[in-house]
Amino acid sequence: MSKIAVLGYGTVGSGVVAVFNTNRELINTREGEEIEVKYVLDLRDFPGDPVENILVHDFSVIVNDPEVEVVAEVMGGTGAAYQFTKQCLLAGKSVCTSNKALVAEHGQELMDIAREKGVNYLFEASCGGGIPIIRALNTSLKADKVDEISGILNGTTNYMLWKMEQEGVDFETALKEAQARGYAEADPTADVEGHDACRKIAILSSIAYGKHINYKDIYTEGITKVTPDDMEYAKAMNRRIKLLATSHHTEEGVYILVAPFLVEEKNPLFGVEDVFNAVFVHGNMLGDAMFYGSGAGKLPTASAVAADILDCIRNKGRLVPNGWASEELDLLDVDEAEGRFFLRVTDASYDEIEELFPGAETVELDSYWDEIGVVTKTMRQREFKEKQALLGEKVRRMIRIKD
Amino acid sequence: MSKIAVLGYGTVGSGVVAVFNTNRELINTREGEEIEVKYVLDLRDFPGDPVENILVHDFSVIVNDPEVEVVAEVMGGTGAAYQFTKQCLLAGKSVCTSNKALVAEHGQELMDIAREKGVNYLFEASCGGGIPIIRALNTSLKADKVDEISGILNGTTNYMLWKMEQEGVDFETALKEAQARGYAEADPTADVEGHDACRKIAILSSIAYGKHINYKDIYTEGITKVTPDDMEYAKAMNRRIKLLATSHHTEEGVYILVAPFLVEEKNPLFGVEDVFNAVFVHGNMLGDAMFYGSGAGKLPTASAVAADILDCIRNKGRLVPNGWASEELDLLDVDEAEGRFFLRVTDASYDEIEELFPGAETVELDSYWDEIGVVTKTMRQREFKEKQALLGEKVRRMIRIKD
Repeated sequence: MSKIAVLGYGTVGSGVVAVFNTNRELINTREGEEIEVKYVLDLRDFPGDPVENILVHDFSVIVNDPEVEVVAEVMGGTGAAYQFTKQCLLAGKSVCTSNKALVAEHGQELMDIAREKGVNYLFEASCGGGIPIIRALNTSLKADKVDEISGILNGTTNYMLWKMEQEGVDFETALKEAQARGYAEADPTADVEGHDACRKIAILSSIAYGKHINYKDIYTEGITKVTPDDMEYAKAMNRRIKLLATSHHTEEGVYILVAPFLVEEKNPLFGVEDVFNAVFVHGNMLGDAMFYGSGAGKLPTASAVAADILDCIRNKGRLVPNGWASEELDLLDVDEAEGRFFLRVTDASYDEIEELFPGAETVELDSYWDEIGVVTKTMRQREFKEKQALLGEKVRRMIRIKD
Repeated sequence: MSKIAVLGYGTVGSGVVAVFNTNRELINTREGEEIEVKYVLDLRDFPGDPVENILVHDFSVIVNDPEVEVVAEVMGGTGAAYQFTKQCLLAGKSVCTSNKALVAEHGQELMDIAREKGVNYLFEASCGGGIPIIRALNTSLKADKVDEISGILNGTTNYMLWKMEQEGVDFETALKEAQARGYAEADPTADVEGHDACRKIAILSSIAYGKHINYKDIYTEGITKVTPDDMEYAKAMNRRIKLLATSHHTEEGVYILVAPFLVEEKNPLFGVEDVFNAVFVHGNMLGDAMFYGSGAGKLPTASAVAADILDCIRNKGRLVPNGWASEELDLLDVDEAEGRFFLRVTDASYDEIEELFPGAETVELDSYWDEIGVVTKTMRQREFKEKQALLGEKVRRMIRIKD
């Protein structure tokens, strides 16, 4: 018999309890022992709820109970969640979490404490909800040098861009619909400005490259400027606009950015619709691989937390492989990265465009007679920006191209 | 220092050696120890090849060397490969393989021996080449009841169907092209008749459902009957024809079949082109997930074998989780399964169709004025076949619909 505790009875917390209730028999048979949720911590009461009898308001009950081996921290935030996680690890309990903010902010320190104490701090659910990408990076890709991770890591913005594309609505309308469906929060900043995706790509890159990446160093651009006009251009080019969190390990170093990209049809990320998430990975041996699934939601996220809990129980007294090391990794300036760029330019002649961007392709839409859509050749971002600056106010929009 | 041996220096075997050579430094750093390929077994000589010095022709050198901890069996076949694997396991060495024929045929016995000896028999590379689906089923989905696995598990046939769709060529032409590119063997039976996909879905289902499934019990239909006409109908319905290996765990039991299916655009398997493979999984908590990658090829397959080797080294004296148990699972007759069906019927009236298949939709193509395309409502396959039989020779083709 192994006993666990769940910190927080919100969406994910109630999901974790539901997983162990619904699949109790199956899980116990597979693991060869009974797994019991001994406590649920929440400040609120839940009269009539099945957790009523195991609900505690006082964290010390959990941290001081030597029977509790694994704790699921699903409270969110970086305040109490940080303190509680630290205390649990110091008390020799493994901790599993879906809290990407905490992992991105204090993951390094918490993993160090866990290693010292011979317990595990696992966070599969922090990136891509139920998608088992972290375990894959830590085990299946162990013989590979990962040179690219490109992910659709935020379901809310993927839903919004998909709505904008399918229905021709603008950003505000798509946001309202996402809020009405419960996909976006009242304050959607973390999603629409790319902050959420930024934390996730920092976590994934830290694991894949084996060094610590500070999410604050990552260039991050959201989707607030994307318009229905941009969507029309994308369609004309047989592309879709996706918010990508993309990370490249080149010979020169590592660069990471979060921004809207024009994705072509043959790219496996092209077909990722609705609130789904996906992570594309390229390994120097494996080649292309992609992991697709529900990036959020009560049960998919809880499924990943539960799988981590079972991993901790199975690996009692033993460290689960984790590539993320303490050494800091300095990122390259994204201006040094190479790529192609899409520009909407007004009041410019073809000669002017050709002179600035030799060999660029152009796209024209009947409904936008006063502008030219320009797709540059591959060039360094620094050089591109210098040339873009020469066009000044004539540039209505720039979107990166994912090749 | 850990020492390994590679049995067979063919495509995958030379790939495994290449992985450990190319990524030597990275792997040694990650694992915290040096990993050395001590022997390569092959009957042939390779003068001038870097393996020349470690090449042996006599298997007993490997099995009797106590320094060799892990053996990669990448010879293929179920003869010598079976004998050698068994002897290695009995000698207390873990074995990793890409040999799906052997795993499907003797996997159960070999796993039992491994368990008894406290070593591991791992076979990630046997299903979907480099796609890390087996490890995901054995770890990340441990808290889920898996109720569906549907995969494009054979790259050769996916390439052929893709060519037929893109270029309008017939089966024979697509096959010749696949052979010219080295994707299909001189005798393509195992691929085009679905036998290869059948073994893979047997392996994946055995792991997911925790019981032994005999691949010989699986209804298997290949792609040899698919024509350019069928492709035109598929396009008219906004669908693609894919050879799916599909396995459902319902309340009534488990049914598995391998057959061409019409896949709709919103299904994530729709976009899997060329020689790529993908496995869709549905868990009762996780919901939809898909794993995509190179289903074959020297380095992707070798990457998966190498990751298994590292898992064995890391788990010395300890069993890696493996859901596949000895108990046999009796499959349901696929005639009991429900689905929708597409039929091309000639010399039949709409009234006749409506009487047999009430509520069916019809599809018509200008170029096939003498036939009607029929899409039935959901019905049991048994009932469908009875009705199809009433149409006798009027039925030109039947293809299942993937909903």
